[in-house]
Formats: sequence, C-alpha cells, structure tokens
Amino acid sequence: MVSPIDPTSAAFLFAENRSMPMHVGGLQLFKKPEGAGRTYIRDMYEEMRDVQDIAPLFLKHPKRSIGTAGQWVWEPDEQFDIEHHVRHSALPKPGRVRELLELCSRLHSTRLARERPLWEAHVIEGLRDGRVAMYTKTHHALVDGISAMRLLQSVLSTDPDERDMPAMWGARPKRAKTSKELSRVEQSLADVPIQALRTALGITAEAAGMPGALVKTISKGLKNETSALSLYAPRTLFNQNITGSRRFAAQDWPIERLRAIGKKTGTTLNDVVLAMCSGAIRTYLLELDSLPEQPLVAMVPVGLNAKQSQVASADGGNAVGAVMVQLATDLHDPAKRLATIHKSMRDGKEALSSMTPVQIMAMSALGQAPAILGPMLRMQGIVRPPYNLIISNVPGPKTTHYWNGAQLVGTYPLSIPINGMALNITCTSYDGNMAFGLTGCRRTVPHLQRLLNHLDEEVAALEKAAGV
Amino acid sequence: MVSPIDPTSAAFLFAENRSMPMHVGGLQLFKKPEGAGRTYIRDMYEEMRDVQDIAPLFLKHPKRSIGTAGQWVWEPDEQFDIEHHVRHSALPKPGRVRELLELCSRLHSTRLARERPLWEAHVIEGLRDGRVAMYTKTHHALVDGISAMRLLQSVLSTDPDERDMPAMWGARPKRAKTSKELSRVEQSLADVPIQALRTALGITAEAAGMPGALVKTISKGLKNETSALSLYAPRTLFNQNITGSRRFAAQDWPIERLRAIGKKTGTTLNDVVLAMCSGAIRTYLLELDSLPEQPLVAMVPVGLNAKQSQVASADGGNAVGAVMVQLATDLHDPAKRLATIHKSMRDGKEALSSMTPVQIMAMSALGQAPAILGPMLRMQGIVRPPYNLIISNVPGPKTTHYWNGAQLVGTYPLSIPINGMALNITCTSYDGNMAFGLTGCRRTVPHLQRLLNHLDEEVAALEKAAGV
Repeated sequence: MVSPIDPTSAAFLFAENRSMPMHVGGLQLFKKPEGAGRTYIRDMYEEMRDVQDIAPLFLKHPKRSIGTAGQWVWEPDEQFDIEHHVRHSALPKPGRVRELLELCSRLHSTRLARERPLWEAHVIEGLRDGRVAMYTKTHHALVDGISAMRLLQSVLSTDPDERDMPAMWGARPKRAKTSKELSRVEQSLADVPIQALRTALGITAEAAGMPGALVKTISKGLKNETSALSLYAPRTLFNQNITGSRRFAAQDWPIERLRAIGKKTGTTLNDVVLAMCSGAIRTYLLELDSLPEQPLVAMVPVGLNAKQSQVASADGGNAVGAVMVQLATDLHDPAKRLATIHKSMRDGKEALSSMTPVQIMAMSALGQAPAILGPMLRMQGIVRPPYNLIISNVPGPKTTHYWNGAQLVGTYPLSIPINGMALNITCTSYDGNMAFGLTGCRRTVPHLQRLLNHLDEEVAALEKAAGV
Repeated sequence: MVSPIDPTSAAFLFAENRSMPMHVGGLQLFKKPEGAGRTYIRDMYEEMRDVQDIAPLFLKHPKRSIGTAGQWVWEPDEQFDIEHHVRHSALPKPGRVRELLELCSRLHSTRLARERPLWEAHVIEGLRDGRVAMYTKTHHALVDGISAMRLLQSVLSTDPDERDMPAMWGARPKRAKTSKELSRVEQSLADVPIQALRTALGITAEAAGMPGALVKTISKGLKNETSALSLYAPRTLFNQNITGSRRFAAQDWPIERLRAIGKKTGTTLNDVVLAMCSGAIRTYLLELDSLPEQPLVAMVPVGLNAKQSQVASADGGNAVGAVMVQLATDLHDPAKRLATIHKSMRDGKEALSSMTPVQIMAMSALGQAPAILGPMLRMQGIVRPPYNLIISNVPGPKTTHYWNGAQLVGTYPLSIPINGMALNITCTSYDGNMAFGLTGCRRTVPHLQRLLNHLDEEVAALEKAAGV
C-alpha cells in the first residue's frame, strides 16, 4: 500500500539535512486534575500509548528506492512500534522550567529517522510545580505548525469532566457523535488526507515547485515595485549557516497587557507582539555589540480575508500572505518603534491586497518553503537575505481546554531554523495568554534564552511609553 | 582529514538496518561517595560533558559519497556538539530498576545517526535507591563489546580518593604519569587506532571479507567433521527475523555461589553460567509451549592460549575461538544438564585446538560477524541456523573500582540481536559478581524479563542438585 508523496512534502524531505531537521514541535503544559493519584502521569502516558487504532497519518513512513524509481513515497510501517513514538520521560532535578526547556532543546535537535513514521511524543514528569509536560515532534512533511496546533485542539475539550478522549495520533471511531463530541472540531484532522492538511497555510504543490510567479514576485521586490517585499535586510548574526543544535526558549504574557498598549497607541495586538520582538532583538544585539545600523526586517505571515486575497484555502477559511515588516531596530524609543512597525505592517498589507492571487501564493511560499528558497535566490543573483527572521503569530483557542480532565495551562510552538535564518519566533495565543516560542541554532544564536528577559523588559517599556 | 574505514567496520555499517542497529551498549551503576551533595549527579554530568579534549575515536563520523567513490570513510565532525552525545536524563517515578531497564531498552532501540560520531552517553538520575546510572552506546564499527569494557576500565581507578579522572571519551594528556595513574591501564584505549582496538576478539579484515577458510569451516561442519561446529540446531522462536525494538534485562549473582556449584560438580564457572542459561531458556520456552525436542545449541566464544591457537592477537593476549555447545535443554534434571554442557564444552575446545589458525579465525567470524554470515550460509544452501543463540562471558575487573570517588557497583552489557538470532546473552564479571545482560528483540522474544526469574530459580536448582 504505497502512496505518492505530494511535491511540497517531498520538498521538505529533500531539503532536510543534519543542520536543518525539518520537524515542528509543540510543548504543552497540563495541570493535573483535583485528586490526581501518585501514578497520574504514568497512567496518562499509558493511556496515550495504548490507543486501539492509530490514524493512518501516524503509521506511514517515507521511502525512496529503485523500486519507486527514486521517488519518495509513503509506505505503512510494517514494524510500527508505538513505544518508539510515545515515550515517558522525566526531568533531572531540580525540575525547573529551565530543565524542561533544556530537554526540549535536545529533543528538538535530533532528526526523525525516516525508517519509521515521522513523529514522537514525550510525556514528561518531574516539574517541581507538579505540572505535566508534553513535547511532540512531527515532520513538516506531515503537518505544518498551524495544522499541528489544530490537530492538538481537535482532541481537547472545554469540558473538564469529559473522559475517554483520544490521543492526538488515535484514529477516531466512525460512530454517532455525542453532543459533547460535537463541541470539538467536527472531523478529526488526523483522518484528513495530508494534502488537505497542508493547505492551511495556502501552500500548493505549484508554489513548492517554484513557479514563474515566485520568480516574478522576487524580481519585482528587487526593483522595489511592491513594498510588501523587501530585499534589503541588513546582515546580522541570525543570517548565517546553522548547525543542527537547537536552543528553545518560551514564555507567555497576558494578552490583556499587550492589548492595553495597543488601545492606548492605536495599534493592533500583532503590532505590539512585533514591537516586543523588535525591542528584545535590539537589546540582544546591542549586548553582543552587533546591532546593524539599518533596521532589521521580519517576514510576517498575515491572514487575508477571502475578498482581499481572492483565494480561499481548502478549509474555507482565509488565505495567508506574507508581509516584510521594518522592525525599526535603529530607533531607541519604544513608542517610535511601535509606530513605525504599525505603519510598515499597514503598508505591507495594503500592497499585498493589490497583488494577484498567484503573487500572494508565491509570497507565502517565501515564508513557508524557505529552505527551497535559498538556491533560487542565488539563481537570481541575490546574496543578501530578503529578511532577517520570521515572526509568526498563530491564533489558538480563547477558552480553557482539557484533555481527560487535565487542564491545558500553556502551549508553546517549536519551529524550524534554517540556513541563513537561525532564529524563528512563533507566537500562539491561548486562554488569555500570548505564548512566545523562540527556536534557534544554539551555536549561531548564543544565549538565546536572554531574549525572554528582553521581551519582558520590552512589555514594561511599551507600557510606560504608552502610558498604560 | 578523511581516513579509510577498515573492512570489518565497514561491514558493520553495511549490515546495519532499521531492524538491526549495530551498536553495543553498557549500563553502569555507581554509588555516590559519602557526603555527596544535592547536585552530585548534575556535577558528574557536567564534568563528563565539559571535557577539554575529545579522543579522535569519538570525533569522527562515517561518510560515503561520490567524492569517496562510494566507499565509507571516517571524517571529523565539523559540527561536533558534545551536548548531543553526553546527556543528562532522569527516570520516571517510582524509579525502580524496572524503569531503568525500560529506559535502556528504549535507548538501545534507536539507531545512531551517521551524520554524527557514533556514540552516546546518558547520565541517569532518579533511581530511588540513590544510585547513579550511566548508559553508553557505541557503534560496533568503533568498538566491540570487549573493547568497550576495556575502554571503561581504562578510566576507572581502584583508589576511592582519586579525582580529576577523565571521561571515557576524553583524550588523555601526554604528560608524565603519577604513580596513581600508572595503576590504571598504561595507554588510553581511546588514543589507540581503531584497527588495533578491534583485534581484541581476533577479527581481521580477512575474516570479515569472508575468505575461503570460513566457507571451508562451514562445509566441514555440515559434514560433521568437527564437533566444534554444529549446524544442526533446532528451530526456535529465537531464530526468526527481528524488528528494531529491544528489550533489555539484567541482574547479577555472587560468583561465590556459582563457583561452589562448579567445585562440587567438577565443572567450570563458565559451565555453570551456561547451565543457568540453559535451565532458564528451557523453562521460558516450556511456558510458551515452544520447547523443541532437540536440544538448543549456543555459540560460545572461548579464549585460547597462544599455544592452543597458534595465533596471538595484536595486544599479545589470547586469541578467541568459538565453540558450539549443546545446551541439553531436552533434559529435566539440572545436574545432568550441567554434566552434558561440561562435556560438550570440553569436546568443543579440544576440537578447536586441533583446528588450524585460519580455521579458528574463521570460527570467530561466525560469532563476531553474524550479520554478514546470513547471506553466506544461504549461498551454501544452509537454511537452518547453525546455533540458536550466542552466550558470551567477558571477564571484567575483579576488584572494586571508582570513577572520581563514585563506586562502580555493577556493570551490564547490552548486545546486538540480529535476524535469526533474536536473543543475546552476555555475561561480565566484576568485583565478585557475575552480571547477566540479556538483549532481545521485544517482539520476537516476548516477556524477556521473565528469564531473570528463571535464571535465579536455576541457581537454586543447581545448588540443590550439587548439594551445596
């Protein structure tokens, strides 16, 4: 039962090498329910391990051989071993968040072996505050960051008393749904064909195939015909070749605080998130004495409504485009930085709305398939990076969710640094908090965890500047 | 700085696949020194991680490319990252030996990625009795089981007060040695060229190249011309194709108890070890209702003195041959089993001493390169396995050893099951105990850990039968 791999997934398999593992990760923190026993975490692990049926997505592995004419194909894993994929781990003492982030950094550094289905999940005990952590790792050939988050959401419930909920990788039985189950996402994402899953960010096979439109878009950008595309980002330490070692740092801030800054200054929540990143990166680079004179440029994926984009993605939602945002890292004043970012973002979105659907799709590909972009840029004679880093903001559930009674108290994304783009910042909102997940090459981005402190200082600086 | 890989190492790289990872493992248990602080294990980990110089053996990884004409070569890892190789892990609660063996089983199931140097070491905390565990994993292309044990020994000391001892992978500084250091193995094994390391078991490139002598030896065995070689082992559940999942079980017994049985019955310590295995396997197979009528045959590597073997290995010690031992699993009476094993072993050694050096070397290859043996046997029209399992007994240090004050209280080997040979038993002696390490394919050998109970029962049964 061999099935073909769509070109986008195949591109991620081709692009992967030792320095650039192509998997996305997720870190979830759960609070044990009241009255949880001593063996609660072990039971949780066993429940996740002992699923009756695994969804097909999590059972196949990629294969390339003479028999498949050198093409990558999906093949069911005849030796599938759930204990390889679902693991019970523990943190060394003293079990602080620091030890958790170190473990996640290490787990995120290792490539998934292609001889097995491309995913892993670790139920982690030993946090001294008693919370349970779960780190999941899925190859980008299976899901992108957005789909991974939706997949997680699809097995959670808003009802703390619901039980018998499946693990993310469990196949959902085809039976009449109870009203409780209807409150969850209607169709299990794990049962949806991969191709449909991957459309969440509007990537199509054509985009991954680097069509003429993308080349045209880049050429336009070179000639500065559209301000949505900047190809004049300064060189920074983030824009070097990377190694395979990862450092992950994560923290969240109350959305209320960020929104208050936005209200006072007439900017959006997303503008404030970008201003936080801008200020933190500025301080970080200043400390390392390597802040360039020119402002850094971030590639920011943005949602577009169907009218703007003229294309709707397969799930009937909005399409996504990419805007190049001037981060104003040359400015000392937080208020001025926020204002500049706000203007840059608005200009970018406007430019985007005047682009053709194919151009927008090509723009998305810039952010979504950066690994395959490199060679093409060089083909076009472009040696400087078109942007310094990717900052994305993925909206998550707004209300409190549970898995079999365990309250999800935090969820943090781990992303994919690539050559020339050593730092990735992905934010997700959940239950009133904005979570920042920073994934970087440990060698190229030294002391990455310092950015967390700088982000925190920046919230305070923005509040002060806005007069909140 | 590319260097060629010797044919034997290359053979292990070629033979490796998802079902047959080709690494050997070691599990060591340490007792913390008196007055060890709360951060003792973390400090121990950091000491091992922060070595100044890594021995060349632990810095290179194998590479094969068009540039190397398709040949495997060693290449220094330009992106060497010690944190990938030396890891700090913890056991889930309740932190029994069971959780430790589960973790080791899992770690031993995963292949080493070839893009990095082929080794890993895990400093493991969380044992409820307060001991520290260390699991190490090294590719067979770097070291064999014996060399791995000698490598470990080379960094240990008999002096509990000695400090500043290097990690196994540390390069030893070339300086005048103190008298204390002289008490350790004179030359650091890690600094010895790989080829020399691998000779410990007498494997030569010719043997791995499957020379005519091996084919001749096997043909002779077929015709029953030498009793050192049996090709009439019955089919058992151990002799099937395996998967990549491993189960590891380990335990030790006082050598004094085993020696007492030997003394009373006029048999050797090694005979008693084999009788324990025989009895345990008999009970195990009976419980599964799959004990064959014919007795099982074990391949047992034995040491030969220089006169017997007419060849000395490179380190001036003894060469090693292989004897096929009738395990007498058809007999109910433990005393009769032990007597049969003793006779079979003696006959085998005698036959071995009448073989030519090349034949002996070829016999070693049977045990040492079993993965490359399979195709050759089929070439010779042999479809049944020549033996049912490998049982080896590797002598270790007789006295108490320490690493920077931490007392080594147990050391257990993890070996390599292969297709057709799903269970491997390796024993090592240390400080008055005989440690049994059982490594098997988890799917092919169900409930492998039951063998530990059966081994324990068998010691008692043998004691009773011998009248100890």
